[in-house]
Amino acid sequence: MTDDVTRHDGRAPDQLREVRITRNWLDHAEGSVLVEFGKTRVLVAASFTAGVPRWLSGQGTGWVTAEYEMLPRATNTRSARESRKGKVGGRTHEISRLIGRSLRAIIDTKALGENTIVLDCDVLQADGGTRTASITGAYVALADAVADARERGLIAAKAQPLTGSIAAVSVGIVKGTPVLDLDYPEDSTAETDMNVVMTGAGGFVEVQGTAEGAPFDRAELDRLLALAEKGIGDLTALQQAALDAPARERSR
Amino acid sequence: MTDDVTRHDGRAPDQLREVRITRNWLDHAEGSVLVEFGKTRVLVAASFTAGVPRWLSGQGTGWVTAEYEMLPRATNTRSARESRKGKVGGRTHEISRLIGRSLRAIIDTKALGENTIVLDCDVLQADGGTRTASITGAYVALADAVADARERGLIAAKAQPLTGSIAAVSVGIVKGTPVLDLDYPEDSTAETDMNVVMTGAGGFVEVQGTAEGAPFDRAELDRLLALAEKGIGDLTALQQAALDAPARERSR
Amino acid sequence: MTDDVTRHDGRAPDQLREVRITRNWLDHAEGSVLVEFGKTRVLVAASFTAGVPRWLSGQGTGWVTAEYEMLPRATNTRSARESRKGKVGGRTHEISRLIGRSLRAIIDTKALGENTIVLDCDVLQADGGTRTASITGAYVALADAVADARERGLIAAKAQPLTGSIAAVSVGIVKGTPVLDLDYPEDSTAETDMNVVMTGAGGFVEVQGTAEGAPFDRAELDRLLALAEKGIGDLTALQQAALDAPARERSR
Amino acid sequence: MTDDVTRHDGRAPDQLREVRITRNWLDHAEGSVLVEFGKTRVLVAASFTAGVPRWLSGQGTGWVTAEYEMLPRATNTRSARESRKGKVGGRTHEISRLIGRSLRAIIDTKALGENTIVLDCDVLQADGGTRTASITGAYVALADAVADARERGLIAAKAQPLTGSIAAVSVGIVKGTPVLDLDYPEDSTAETDMNVVMTGAGGFVEVQGTAEGAPFDRAELDRLLALAEKGIGDLTALQQAALDAPARERSR
Amino acid sequence: MTDDVTRHDGRAPDQLREVRITRNWLDHAEGSVLVEFGKTRVLVAASFTAGVPRWLSGQGTGWVTAEYEMLPRATNTRSARESRKGKVGGRTHEISRLIGRSLRAIIDTKALGENTIVLDCDVLQADGGTRTASITGAYVALADAVADARERGLIAAKAQPLTGSIAAVSVGIVKGTPVLDLDYPEDSTAETDMNVVMTGAGGFVEVQGTAEGAPFDRAELDRLLALAEKGIGDLTALQQAALDAPARERSR
Amino acid sequence: MTDDVTRHDGRAPDQLREVRITRNWLDHAEGSVLVEFGKTRVLVAASFTAGVPRWLSGQGTGWVTAEYEMLPRATNTRSARESRKGKVGGRTHEISRLIGRSLRAIIDTKALGENTIVLDCDVLQADGGTRTASITGAYVALADAVADARERGLIAAKAQPLTGSIAAVSVGIVKGTPVLDLDYPEDSTAETDMNVVMTGAGGFVEVQGTAEGAPFDRAELDRLLALAEKGIGDLTALQQAALDAPARERSR
Repeated sequence: MTDDVTRHDGRAPDQLREVRITRNWLDHAEGSVLVEFGKTRVLVAASFTAGVPRWLSGQGTGWVTAEYEMLPRATNTRSARESRKGKVGGRTHEISRLIGRSLRAIIDTKALGENTIVLDCDVLQADGGTRTASITGAYVALADAVADARERGLIAAKAQPLTGSIAAVSVGIVKGTPVLDLDYPEDSTAETDMNVVMTGAGGFVEVQGTAEGAPFDRAELDRLLALAEKGIGDLTALQQAALDAPARERSR
Repeated sequence: MTDDVTRHDGRAPDQLREVRITRNWLDHAEGSVLVEFGKTRVLVAASFTAGVPRWLSGQGTGWVTAEYEMLPRATNTRSARESRKGKVGGRTHEISRLIGRSLRAIIDTKALGENTIVLDCDVLQADGGTRTASITGAYVALADAVADARERGLIAAKAQPLTGSIAAVSVGIVKGTPVLDLDYPEDSTAETDMNVVMTGAGGFVEVQGTAEGAPFDRAELDRLLALAEKGIGDLTALQQAALDAPARERSR
Repeated sequence: MTDDVTRHDGRAPDQLREVRITRNWLDHAEGSVLVEFGKTRVLVAASFTAGVPRWLSGQGTGWVTAEYEMLPRATNTRSARESRKGKVGGRTHEISRLIGRSLRAIIDTKALGENTIVLDCDVLQADGGTRTASITGAYVALADAVADARERGLIAAKAQPLTGSIAAVSVGIVKGTPVLDLDYPEDSTAETDMNVVMTGAGGFVEVQGTAEGAPFDRAELDRLLALAEKGIGDLTALQQAALDAPARERSR
Repeated sequence: MTDDVTRHDGRAPDQLREVRITRNWLDHAEGSVLVEFGKTRVLVAASFTAGVPRWLSGQGTGWVTAEYEMLPRATNTRSARESRKGKVGGRTHEISRLIGRSLRAIIDTKALGENTIVLDCDVLQADGGTRTASITGAYVALADAVADARERGLIAAKAQPLTGSIAAVSVGIVKGTPVLDLDYPEDSTAETDMNVVMTGAGGFVEVQGTAEGAPFDRAELDRLLALAEKGIGDLTALQQAALDAPARERSR
Repeated sequence: MTDDVTRHDGRAPDQLREVRITRNWLDHAEGSVLVEFGKTRVLVAASFTAGVPRWLSGQGTGWVTAEYEMLPRATNTRSARESRKGKVGGRTHEISRLIGRSLRAIIDTKALGENTIVLDCDVLQADGGTRTASITGAYVALADAVADARERGLIAAKAQPLTGSIAAVSVGIVKGTPVLDLDYPEDSTAETDMNVVMTGAGGFVEVQGTAEGAPFDRAELDRLLALAEKGIGDLTALQQAALDAPARERSR
Repeated sequence: MTDDVTRHDGRAPDQLREVRITRNWLDHAEGSVLVEFGKTRVLVAASFTAGVPRWLSGQGTGWVTAEYEMLPRATNTRSARESRKGKVGGRTHEISRLIGRSLRAIIDTKALGENTIVLDCDVLQADGGTRTASITGAYVALADAVADARERGLIAAKAQPLTGSIAAVSVGIVKGTPVLDLDYPEDSTAETDMNVVMTGAGGFVEVQGTAEGAPFDRAELDRLLALAEKGIGDLTALQQAALDAPARERSR
C-alpha cells in the first residue's frame, strides 16, 4: 500500500473535489442550497412547517426529516423513476434515513418547538458521494431555514435549535491506497468504501464501512478514519464560509 | 375589456417573461437544458437509447416520449413526492403525455431508426407555465440529442429525424384582458386559460383551452389564438438563438 | 378538401350518430343514465352524499366530481383491468378530470350546500367518443340527482345548483374533410381530433384539439369549431327532450 | 321452522326471482350476456384469445378464467373503486376465483387447445346473488364464445370443450325458513347462507355454506341442499332456453 | 369405492395426523400457539388491543379478526413474498377471511367490550391443511388471550366472550376413498376437497367443498360430512387437553 | 465510564446472550436454521435454485441474496404487515441488503456456478439484535445448502463456494459502558449502537455505528471494535460447533 500514487483526476489522496455551496438557489423554500462535490450536484430544499407528525404530537418537540431521490438521468444511463415503478427502492430509503438521522444529531428538538423541517435532497447529477454531499449541503439549508423561522417569529428569538454543525464525507481504499471523497470511477472500483458523518466539533455520528472486495483490517480502518477527520474539517470550514457570506435575496 | 392595463409585473399583455435556455447543463445526458420562463425553472434531460418499446419493435421506427415531474418544494408549499405516495397523479400523467405528443409532432420516427429518446422534464421551481417551458426546452434538448447521435454514428449521417421545431406558450384572460405567458399569480386568477403548442412554421399541434370561470366566446378565443401565435414566434427565435450559440462542453 | 364525400356509415359530415339517453337505468343511484352515441354505450351513475372532501370542509360549498373507467371488454380486444394492474392509467385520469371540470362549469357550488355529487361514467362498450358521451349523459344524471335531492329536502327547495346545461362532442378532419362525432374507425384515422365542451347557451368550456398527423391551420380550426357548435346544439335539444319525458320509476 | 310464511316480495320459499338472460348484449365480445336475477344485473363478456398463460404453455391445453368486479354504484351506497384504491379486495378475489373454478369444471381444456377464454363479470346493479348470477350467465357467454371459435375455425370443428352446463344459486335460512335465491334484504338478515354450484347433470361442483348467526345442523344442511338442487334445475332450463333462442346479431 | 385401502403414510381413512399444540411459544403475545398437523406447522399469535376499527366504534362491541400468510419457503419450492410483490394474493385473503369468520362464530362481541383481538397465523411449514391447522390453533391462542385480558382486568372478571370452542378439518376423496385430514400429497391428487369448520358442540360453521375433478354426488357429500364430524370431535379433545395442561411461563 | 456495572440481565459487558443454533428446523429447505440470541428468534431458510437473475445471466457466476422480515407480533406490540401495507419499509430493505452483502463477502460466485441461493430470515420473536442473529444463522443455513447442492451433484464435487465463515454482533454504549450483544432494553437506551460483521478469519466486512444520543469519540469507537472482535470469535466457535454436530434428518 502506498499513498504517493496519483489519482485519476490528479488529486492528492487527502484532497476533496472542488466543493461549491450556493445558498438560496430557490425562491420559495425557507432554506435551499445547490451543493456540488465536483460533478455531483444536489439541490437541497428545507421546508419549515408548523406542526409535527401525529406520533410526536403534544410533546412540545419538533421534527427534522429528509427525503433523498435521484433524477432519472442523474446517472450515466437513465434509471426508471421510482414514482412510475410505484415504489421507493431500498437504496433511496436507506439514504433518506441516514440524512435525517444525521441532521437530528445536531438538532435540539425542544428548542425547535412543535415544528417540522423537511430536507428534500434531489440529486440532479451523480458522480459519487451523493449522500455525503446531501448531508453537507442539507446542514446549510437547515441553518438558513432555522434563521428564517427565527426572523419570522415562528420560533422564539432566543431558541437555538442547532447544537452544532454536521458534515459527511466518503473515504475508501482504491487500488490499495486510502483516499478521500471518492468520485464515481473510484467508488466503483474501491475495495473498501466508508461514509463518515461527523459534527463540526469532531464527534462521530455515523460510521458506515463496507468491504466491497476483501475484508479490511484494523490498520486500514484507522487510516480511513483519519482521512475522514481531515475531510470533515475542510467541509466544516466551507460550510461556515458559505453561511458567513451574504446570500442571494429570495424573491418570494 | 381593455388591453392597456398594466400587468402585476409590468409586462405588456403580449410580452413573454424573461426566457433563458442553458444548454448542456448536465454532463451525462445526450442533450440537456435548464429552461427558465421567469422564475419557472425546468431541467430537461434527453436520453438516447438503442431499441424501442416492445409494442413498436421490428417496425423500423423510433420512439420519443416524455416524463414530467415536480420536485416537492418546486411550489410555494411542499407537496408529497409521488414516489412516496406510490402513484403518479393525474396532472403529472396528463402533462407527460402532452409533452411527448407535442415532440412527436416534429419527429420523423422512420428517420430516427429503432431508437428511443426520453425527455425527462423535472420542475425545479414552479411559477406558472411549467408545461409550456418544458415543451419549449425539450425541443432544444431533443435537437442536441439528435445531433449527438448523428456525431456518434448511432443514426445515419443524413438522417433528419427533426421535421421542424416546436414550442408552447400559455395565454389567458386575466381581469378581462387577454395576456401572454401567465405566471402563477395570473394563472390562479385567470378566467380562461389556454395552452397552445405550435411548430416553428406556424402550424397548430395542440390547443387546450379551459374556462376556469365563465365560459368564453368565439371572439375571446380568436384573440387568445392571436396572442399565442405571437408568443410562439418569439420562443422559436429564442430556441434558434440558443441552438446557434456554442454550448458548454460536456465532460462525460 | 371537400365536404360532399360520404362517411363510411353514410352520415353527412355534420350529422351525429343515433343518440339515446335512457334515464333511471339503475334503481339505487340518485340519478342514472345509459347514454349511447351509436355503438358507444356509457352507464352514468350520479351519487349524492352529504358532506364534502376535507379540503373544502366548512366553506359552505359543495363538490361535483367524476370517475371514468372502461370495462375490460368495452373495446375490440380485451384490456387488463386497472384495478388488477394496481394503478389508474394516464388516459383514465385525464378523462375523469375533464368530465368533472366540465360539469363544475354549470354548477353553483354555493347553491349545492356542503354536499357532494360523484358522477361514475363506466364505458360498457366503446366505439369512439366515450368522453363526449360521458359528459353529455352525465349532465342528465346530474340534473336528476339534483331534482331528487330537492324532492327529499336535502337541498333547499329554491336552490338552483345548475346554472345551465352542458354537452360535449368530438370533431375532426378525416381524409381531408371536417366531420362531426367521430366513431372509432374515423377517430383512428383522423388527421386532427378535437373535443369541444359547451354550455347549452353556447359558451365554450373546453376546447382540446390535437394534430394527429400534420399540424392544422387557423382555417381548419375555424371549420371544426363551427361543426362543434352545430353538434352541441343538437345534443342540447336531445338532453332537454330526455329530461322533459317521464322517466322509468326507480324501485329503491 | 315453517315453510308457509310469505317472503317479503311474495315469492314461495323454493321460487327463483325473475331471471332474464340477454345474449350478445355487446358487439365486440366473442360471447356476452346481460344476466338478471331480479334487480341484480351482471354484464358478462367472454373474450377468446389464442395462447395461454406462461405456466401452461406448451402442454396443449387451454385455460378459462374469470374476473368479477362491482361498479361503484352497483350498491345502495357508493363504494370506492378498487382501481383507485390500488388494490383488489379480498371479496373480489374470492368471487373471481370461484367463478373461474366453476367454469373449469365443465371445460375439457385439451379440447380447447392452447387458447384462453376470460369471463369478465361486471356487476352493474347488486341486489344479492351477484356471484350466482355471474356463474349462471357466464356459462351462456362461454357457450357462445366456444361456438364462435368453432365457426371461425379457431378450434377444431369437432372439438367439444364443453362437457356439460353449469349454474349456481344461493340458498339460506331466513327467519327460520330455508329459502331459494336470496335477494339483498334476505341475504343481509339470513342466519345461514349457502352458495351451491352444480352441473346441469346434477353433480355438485362447489358447496359453500356459512353460519352467519348460530351454527346450523345436518337437518338444515340437507334441506338447503334440496332447495339448491331444485333451483339449479330451473336455472339449467332457463340457460338452455336462452341458448336455443336466436340471439341478436352482433355488428362487429 | 373402498375404505380399506392403506393411505401413503399408513393412516386409517378416519385418522388425523399427529397433532401437537404448544402454548405460549412466544413471550410477547397475549396468546400464542405453535400448532402442528403432521409436518404442517403454523405459528399463531393473538394480540389483544384496546379499541376497535372505526366502523365499529362506539357500539360497545369488540372485534376479532385474522391474518394468514405463508413464509416464502414454507412450501417445497420458494414463493415470492407478498410484501415484495406489493399485494396480497387472492388465496391469502380468502383464508384470512375464513379464519376470522370462524373465530367470530364463537365470540360474544358484547362480552369482549370495545377491544380487538387479531390472530396472526403464519405458516412456517406447509404440508396440506394449513387453514384448518390455523383455525384449530387460533382457538387455543384466542382462549389464552381472553384469559390474559381477564387476569389483567382489561375485560370484566365475569365476562365470557367465548361462547364455545371451534376447530376445523379437511376431508376429501382420494383415489375413490373418503379420507380425513389430507396431507399435501393427498390434497394435490384429491378428486374432491372439503374444509369443515365446526363448534365443539357439533354445529356447522363453514362447509366449503370443491370438486377438483369430477363433480361429487349427495352420497359422497354425506360420507365426507360424517368423517369431518369425527375429526372435529378428536380435535376438540386435543384443544381441551392443551388448555387443561399447564403452559410454559411467558417472560414478558 | 466504568465497566464493572452489572447489566440488567446479569451478563458481563463482553458476554453474549445464550446462543442456540438448530439446524434443519424445516423439512423442505435446502438449508435451515432456527437461530436464537436470547429471546430473539429468527428462522432462516436457504433456498437453492438453478439459474441467476437476468442481469447476471451468461457470466458463469452465481448469486446469493437475502430477504429479512418480521412477523407482525415478533415485537412487544403488533405491527401492521408490510404485505398489507403494499410496500416494504425502509428498515426492512436496509437489513435485507446488509444480510445479502455480508454473505456475499464469503462466497466465491464463480465456484457456485449459475445458481442462486436465497436466504429468507423471518424474525419470529424480536428482542434486539435481529440483524446480527440473522447473519450469524444464515451462514450456517448457507453452508448446509451448499453441502446439499454438492451431494445432489448440482455443483461440482470439488467446488468450494464458501471462502470462509461470517458472523455479526452488535455492540454499544449503554449508560456509559461499552457492552456486547445488546438486547432490546439495552438497545433502546444505548447512546451509541454499532453492528459489526466479520469473517471467522478476523477481517471486517461491515461496520455500522450510529450515535443515538451524543456523538462518540475515537476512544469509544476503539473499545467498541475490540468488544465486537471478541464477540465474533465466540460466535464463530458456536457456528463451527453447530456445523460439526450431526443435524436432524430432513424428511423431504
